[in-house]
Amino acid sequence: MKKYVVIVASGSGKRMGGEIPKQFLKLKEKPILLHTLERVYSFSKEYIILLVLNKEHLHFWEAVIQEYKVDIPHRIVFGGGERFFSVRNALMSIDEKECLVAVHDGVRPLVSAEVFEKCFSLAEVRSNAVTCVGSVDSVRLMSVGGNNESVDRDRVKLIQTPQCFKLSLLKKAYSQHYDKKFTDDASLVENLGRKIYLCEGSRENIKITTPFDLKLAECLL
Amino acid sequence: MKKYVVIVASGSGKRMGGEIPKQFLKLKEKPILLHTLERVYSFSKEYIILLVLNKEHLHFWEAVIQEYKVDIPHRIVFGGGERFFSVRNALMSIDEKECLVAVHDGVRPLVSAEVFEKCFSLAEVRSNAVTCVGSVDSVRLMSVGGNNESVDRDRVKLIQTPQCFKLSLLKKAYSQHYDKKFTDDASLVENLGRKIYLCEGSRENIKITTPFDLKLAECLL
Repeated sequence: MKKYVVIVASGSGKRMGGEIPKQFLKLKEKPILLHTLERVYSFSKEYIILLVLNKEHLHFWEAVIQEYKVDIPHRIVFGGGERFFSVRNALMSIDEKECLVAVHDGVRPLVSAEVFEKCFSLAEVRSNAVTCVGSVDSVRLMSVGGNNESVDRDRVKLIQTPQCFKLSLLKKAYSQHYDKKFTDDASLVENLGRKIYLCEGSRENIKITTPFDLKLAECLL
Repeated sequence: MKKYVVIVASGSGKRMGGEIPKQFLKLKEKPILLHTLERVYSFSKEYIILLVLNKEHLHFWEAVIQEYKVDIPHRIVFGGGERFFSVRNALMSIDEKECLVAVHDGVRPLVSAEVFEKCFSLAEVRSNAVTCVGSVDSVRLMSVGGNNESVDRDRVKLIQTPQCFKLSLLKKAYSQHYDKKFTDDASLVENLGRKIYLCEGSRENIKITTPFDLKLAECLL
């Protein structure tokens, strides 16, 4: 089955401060998003890469392409507003009858080939697969009224990307109406009544959303 | 009210690999535990510091004292086995009728003065206070039978230390029978039927339990 990778990079990244969206900020002399693209491409030349950008950010990306002489094949899809609409636009642009689709955050440049392979393999069998890691900290859950209660740490899974799916399933999930409770693709598929299959990710695969994360990523690279 | 700080450093730290318990591993030329001790002492000379060590590790600490000419006042308490018994031994060694006690992981050397102050202040008013941070990732909870479900990320709090308490409350909590579900002090106090009060920590305040964490700590220092 063909393998598509949707790299979502349409966010405004306001938590980082400054004028440049976080995915275009430099990490060791190179924009974060370019790191992610290069890394995914290095895993397999067979992956078909769709890059979802906010139309208003296109000039940032065009400048990156030019400055770093990027010759990695990728298609650009425009997204924006909520992540939901970005991923949906990418799915709409895929013509295959069936294939596997990995959705990956543009600001997770430290993902490994092993994680991608495991996730695609599980999705091929189970139709969905979601990368996660356990929590190293104790966990409490807030309840209504400001109270909170401890949860068995072993029950807690912190969700990352990639999240991989059969195209038909993911398209069905994205035919639902948008709701802000859908924070990732898994929650949309879950809402169809489907069981979500988890596969072990890696703690290095951090999401860069704050200056603190950028500092971490710089050390880890 | 007097302020005690119990630094818990009696763990074996097996996840780190190697023969030396993790709290004695070097972080930028100095053992992790010494970083923690120095940092806590730098916050206030008024804190009375109790260091809980495994008796079998005493020679590691004595060597540290000698090599780094440590002259920070601290009392040593022996603990071991489960964390529960370590903290309990420390509490038993406190003669005050009432005071405030912060319990802090020996392998969290990156904690800030601000976090300690906020935690002690809240505990002075509420009798307990627990440091936590939100989750930057989506979260899923495993349920019985291997299924899992998404949880609103805003409800999830990742628990750190310090955790601060009035001595009388914490002693009462530790008079309960040991159960492995008690992963931290807050869970013991909660089991008395008390509401747990959360205060905002900092993501920098990581717990060093794996080589990955050690690498992070090295960058952050």
